[in-house]
Amino acid sequence: MKMAPIAVTPPVEQEPTDKLTVNGIEQGLNQTTPSLLDLQPISNGLSDIITKGAINGTKISNGTATPLAELDASLLTTTYTTSPRSVPAQGSPEASSSSVCTDHMIQAKWTASHGWHAPSLQPYGPLSLMPTASCLHYATECFEGMKLYRGFDGKLRLFRPELNCNRMLLSTNRIALPAFAPQELLKLVVKLCATDGAKWLPRDRAGSFLYIRPTMIASDAALGVQRPKEALLFIILTVFPKMDDIPTGMRLLASKDDMVRAWPGGFGYAKVGANYGPSLVAQGEARGMGYNQILWLFGEDCTVTEAGASNFFVVWRTEEGKVQLVTAPLGDRIILDGVTRRSVLELARSRLTAGNEGLEAIEIVERKFTMLEVEEAVKQGRIMEAFAAGTAFFVAPVSHIHFRGKGLDIPMSEGVSGKYTKTIKEWLRGIMWGNEQHEWGYVVEDEGK
Amino acid sequence: MKMAPIAVTPPVEQEPTDKLTVNGIEQGLNQTTPSLLDLQPISNGLSDIITKGAINGTKISNGTATPLAELDASLLTTTYTTSPRSVPAQGSPEASSSSVCTDHMIQAKWTASHGWHAPSLQPYGPLSLMPTASCLHYATECFEGMKLYRGFDGKLRLFRPELNCNRMLLSTNRIALPAFAPQELLKLVVKLCATDGAKWLPRDRAGSFLYIRPTMIASDAALGVQRPKEALLFIILTVFPKMDDIPTGMRLLASKDDMVRAWPGGFGYAKVGANYGPSLVAQGEARGMGYNQILWLFGEDCTVTEAGASNFFVVWRTEEGKVQLVTAPLGDRIILDGVTRRSVLELARSRLTAGNEGLEAIEIVERKFTMLEVEEAVKQGRIMEAFAAGTAFFVAPVSHIHFRGKGLDIPMSEGVSGKYTKTIKEWLRGIMWGNEQHEWGYVVEDEGK
Repeated sequence: MKMAPIAVTPPVEQEPTDKLTVNGIEQGLNQTTPSLLDLQPISNGLSDIITKGAINGTKISNGTATPLAELDASLLTTTYTTSPRSVPAQGSPEASSSSVCTDHMIQAKWTASHGWHAPSLQPYGPLSLMPTASCLHYATECFEGMKLYRGFDGKLRLFRPELNCNRMLLSTNRIALPAFAPQELLKLVVKLCATDGAKWLPRDRAGSFLYIRPTMIASDAALGVQRPKEALLFIILTVFPKMDDIPTGMRLLASKDDMVRAWPGGFGYAKVGANYGPSLVAQGEARGMGYNQILWLFGEDCTVTEAGASNFFVVWRTEEGKVQLVTAPLGDRIILDGVTRRSVLELARSRLTAGNEGLEAIEIVERKFTMLEVEEAVKQGRIMEAFAAGTAFFVAPVSHIHFRGKGLDIPMSEGVSGKYTKTIKEWLRGIMWGNEQHEWGYVVEDEGK
Repeated sequence: MKMAPIAVTPPVEQEPTDKLTVNGIEQGLNQTTPSLLDLQPISNGLSDIITKGAINGTKISNGTATPLAELDASLLTTTYTTSPRSVPAQGSPEASSSSVCTDHMIQAKWTASHGWHAPSLQPYGPLSLMPTASCLHYATECFEGMKLYRGFDGKLRLFRPELNCNRMLLSTNRIALPAFAPQELLKLVVKLCATDGAKWLPRDRAGSFLYIRPTMIASDAALGVQRPKEALLFIILTVFPKMDDIPTGMRLLASKDDMVRAWPGGFGYAKVGANYGPSLVAQGEARGMGYNQILWLFGEDCTVTEAGASNFFVVWRTEEGKVQLVTAPLGDRIILDGVTRRSVLELARSRLTAGNEGLEAIEIVERKFTMLEVEEAVKQGRIMEAFAAGTAFFVAPVSHIHFRGKGLDIPMSEGVSGKYTKTIKEWLRGIMWGNEQHEWGYVVEDEGK
């Protein structure tokens, strides 16, 4: 079966005037890519890509440049499984193992000589990689994390998925993997969700979700340390545990000098594998000591960056008496530009700066802040709340931070969170699960397959 | 077929008095591991491993601790190929593709519940990994680079292989992969080399080599960001191009502020995948501009760290008139403790500090040095030589460095290198290919299979 033809990008040649269509809206690549990204300036090549209008570059043959094939969702081929997998019961050990995937996956291959090959929807199953595959040696890999929500109104929804697809392009670019039009990735994500959503997120599981993992790996079977000449994009849907409801709140262990997650000029802002593996030793030690995650600090002044693999927020009262929601800025590119982070900030800016639902008005601040400031706020009773925010953890209240031998307790005025945290989380939940109709909710039509 | 039994480590329990045997020499784990490693203090757990004498830790069942199974080369099973692969002609495109592997590979699986399973020697072929495999998402992977040399005396040799096996343990430890006795890895490397050496490095190819790639990847099929519960060690032998003979010398492009390879508290000292992928964009740009590699600088003072994925050396005359061989120190753990680096330093210390073969006496210096110092030495005519040193690049003379818009030429007094570089390289070549009998040459007996 082929997907119904939808408007797609023809290979971009000299003048990048071709139109892309996402969600029915026709968009010029030149104009939309930067605004969709809405991220920090990109240092390596993406500006070139945008300027030239070429996503995949060109190949030279017979003295003339031929554009490489673009990623094109309209070329999708589909092969449905003949061995359907069973959906684990909610709350079962299987359901929380983050190892059970749905019946199908999407794959698309890229080669330096051809560009993107036709993507395929196919039964979920193992990948075959040569032992020399680049991604097994050189961490030439990146991914995204998104969720598919079964709404209380019965609809399937994604949450601001275009931001994830744009960030995936930013990540592939940082790790020397091929570019693509983010809108095409989005179409493939939607197709997989539409195919497996009805069975794996049945209507009687309103309020639940599947985790979506678009991944790109370099599959070159060659040990030379060089830009990959072959890559594989794949998308899977995984049954994933709910991670935001730790009844006692998250307990964080502040990182020590000898473990630094990211550095200016590094890649902390990109969702590349290289940010994760190196954090696991510290994370394992923290868990062994009874903490849930590491609170990653940076530099001699102990600047606060991320909590685990999530962004980190505090709510405190300043010495002057104002209530502030504070999180680290994106400027030095050592933290991830999280979709949940951005959404928290945007909601707070639009709904809390003048007070709301009995809450005092709040100032929204993106700036460098240090553990010494947090410690001072705790000592002076000015700390009000803290939480981690990310797709996997959603909005997870923090109740305790261990910093340099001292335990700092963070209040949870509502029992399982603070007031602002609770309010923001409720708003996000409403949008994700369709209690509030909002432009951030992206409805996916069930194909009921 | 089983390997002939050799003395191996029984599972280490309370008192780590068990003996390990490598190359016929019985060694106490407690004493030998630190001295074999001979590396910087290890921050995460390896000291614990050594102290406790437990390589794999223990599992608790029925209230008693059972040691997990150790990696044990004596348990090796072998299945020889029935479809022998053909050896590419020397100088053919295939031979320089770094994608052709020999007939066999070694694999060993580890699970958190059992420890190490019996290793197997088996036909070379693809790995099957679930799309959720940890190594495809979180860069939970590390490797080693070694060479198998066919000597001018007809013998097969490794070069100081115990150092690579020790460093592999250091790398697995940094990236949350399981520990093992390095001596067991060495036995497996030797076995694979003995099996495929005769055919793939025939006696009429004296002076050539195969590249050995021990690799460990986390193979857990689960998306949770956590310490791997399943891993795969594999060892492959690859036909690899000679990379040290660029007739004009290597041309290096000094990195800019917006691209940092490694940082204090990071993992630059470990051979983990996460050090490589993130360097490829800068490397690709450098190649596009006509440079061979990036010269990685660090910090505002432009400290010199590594060249490409190799260590970097300069020979200069100080303002006081002394000749010095200078390379970056290991202390801040941002550069790799290279086996070639170490060997260059040791040979130079033992053979050049009082002059030799018509060469002026030289001082050997491991210290932080900056590009500003290099630039000053070039301007004042004090720079004498520069070279990159590593297993893949061997000793590769450098003729040019582009730094902040200026090109700095480095002399190559002997045409294709400087005098000291040439002498050190000849000594190393002699040891590797058996022209000099030396304790660093580790002879592997051909099995002629």
